[in-house]
Amino acid sequence: MKLATIVDNINSRDGQLVVVSRDLKTAVKTTEIAKTMQEAIDNWNVVEPQLRKVAEDLEKGVLENTFGFSTAHIMSPIPRAYHWVDGSAYVTHVELVRKARGAELPASFWADPLVYMGASDAFIGPNDDILVENEEWGIDFEAEVAVITDDIPAGTKTEQAQKHIKLVMLVNDVTLRNLIPNELGKQFGFYQSKPWTSFSPVAVTPDELGASWDGTKVHLPLTSTLNETKIGSPNAGIDMTFDFARLIEHVSKTRSLTAGTIIGSGTVANNGSPDGSSCLAEVRCLETIQNGAPETPYMKFGDTIEIEMLDQEGNSVFGKIKQKVVQYFPG
Amino acid sequence: MKLATIVDNINSRDGQLVVVSRDLKTAVKTTEIAKTMQEAIDNWNVVEPQLRKVAEDLEKGVLENTFGFSTAHIMSPIPRAYHWVDGSAYVTHVELVRKARGAELPASFWADPLVYMGASDAFIGPNDDILVENEEWGIDFEAEVAVITDDIPAGTKTEQAQKHIKLVMLVNDVTLRNLIPNELGKQFGFYQSKPWTSFSPVAVTPDELGASWDGTKVHLPLTSTLNETKIGSPNAGIDMTFDFARLIEHVSKTRSLTAGTIIGSGTVANNGSPDGSSCLAEVRCLETIQNGAPETPYMKFGDTIEIEMLDQEGNSVFGKIKQKVVQYFPG
Repeated sequence: MKLATIVDNINSRDGQLVVVSRDLKTAVKTTEIAKTMQEAIDNWNVVEPQLRKVAEDLEKGVLENTFGFSTAHIMSPIPRAYHWVDGSAYVTHVELVRKARGAELPASFWADPLVYMGASDAFIGPNDDILVENEEWGIDFEAEVAVITDDIPAGTKTEQAQKHIKLVMLVNDVTLRNLIPNELGKQFGFYQSKPWTSFSPVAVTPDELGASWDGTKVHLPLTSTLNETKIGSPNAGIDMTFDFARLIEHVSKTRSLTAGTIIGSGTVANNGSPDGSSCLAEVRCLETIQNGAPETPYMKFGDTIEIEMLDQEGNSVFGKIKQKVVQYFPG
Repeated sequence: MKLATIVDNINSRDGQLVVVSRDLKTAVKTTEIAKTMQEAIDNWNVVEPQLRKVAEDLEKGVLENTFGFSTAHIMSPIPRAYHWVDGSAYVTHVELVRKARGAELPASFWADPLVYMGASDAFIGPNDDILVENEEWGIDFEAEVAVITDDIPAGTKTEQAQKHIKLVMLVNDVTLRNLIPNELGKQFGFYQSKPWTSFSPVAVTPDELGASWDGTKVHLPLTSTLNETKIGSPNAGIDMTFDFARLIEHVSKTRSLTAGTIIGSGTVANNGSPDGSSCLAEVRCLETIQNGAPETPYMKFGDTIEIEMLDQEGNSVFGKIKQKVVQYFPG
């Protein structure tokens, strides 16, 4: 089952939940079952079977009131969420970043997940412009995979975690690289350096991934394309040091989490970057290690980033994140 | 005007918004104006005058359907929020903590606000138990002031920030001290070390504070009492290096923020701690500086923490946060 949120006729903050056909061409509103994605995930046990019935009927072509699905002006699958926590689960990426600045990775980083809390009130649509005031802030994308969960009790262990994963989607975690050193130096984590996050047009139930979902991670390449040039397509199922079940154990260690929690994988990366990278920072680190300095600039106003994942038959699973960087003028 | 959220008859996640009388003794539901606090703050310009009319009528005693207000089983004013960002605005406190461990405070800390993102999906009610699995995690309270804002555009400057402050409340930012060193060492900020946050029974419009509200901070003592022993009552209007307007400028530097954003002051502290402290960590730092080692233990299972602010006539402005620490058994 594939779900998306479209703009409704009163332009409400939480939009209108729709079921989308497997080929991403047709959709139908689910108002009578759940008006919004949050409402659906709040009551998932009751709502899921009803939504699945709609999805089945949509595939059969027996529904009235369907309409052509376009990702042009849609919202994030959850337009605003109560919790967005992003891991840095591909430790090979963290190791590479450290190596580029001549620092060693503490051994504990391979055993103890690294996560940060992101701005869950600041999601933008999958095709919305990325508004940034200053190009000098070092604008970068980060291509990732994320899951949406139901309620997670405190103290959930890895073995019990998998059943809390209800939906999977892609992420562009926009990052302002040149604001990071000051923020990390203060030790309180990212804030100004992580302004906007967007997700793929649709979130899908894990079964839509077939054999590419092993219960805790997605075994497919994640492709990032900047201005029509491929930056990379590392496989999200390779070198994910902490899978989503392990991340759930980590984030629920001292408290429960609420339905609609979004957990991200962090930048997808494969050891040695044989298929390229999922962010420009990694490209620049590779250049630094090889040539002593980075060559690839960060994104500029007017640049367009596309992030997509194709299944083994070459069909887009989640639809495409496609966003242009646009200058923002405050006031 | 004073607002609170009570448990509704279907035990919904967002509860039922009520207007509470100035003396905190009577309340009335506002269902027809706004069912929830988030709904109210989403449409504040339209909703506020209607709620104020109810508040006036409640004071006059001309309303039907009022009921006795009790804080025993109520929810957080916003039971779950889209954004909770906590400052560390009383830099004198940060300086003291550093001094106790023999570290110097970087000069930039006096000019560049320190904030972290908190778990906005994990608010507990003002009189709910604080559930913690392990006493060895170093359980502490932090008494603070917070504001709730409407939508804040990106790039808002201090001068324009004040008008976005719609409500004021108190905070207990529960902190697991012994989990902090590992998390801050990883540079990604607090996560497991900040499990639960609670707010005062009511959130109030700034005018309820009278002359004690100067537009950007509250000039009243904030009293913390542990097991009926006063820990401190520093004045929240003194030594607040970054007032709420400055914090708003900081958090909106690179992005807009959504209505219902909660911004905290961080632990309230006065230079030299003449009136005591707003957390046990500060008490222990003072002991370390004076005697070489801390004496006061962190909170234990069964301990009760109370946080309250009285106005100049000795009346409780926000009601009392009163919470017992209780052991949690997972699974």
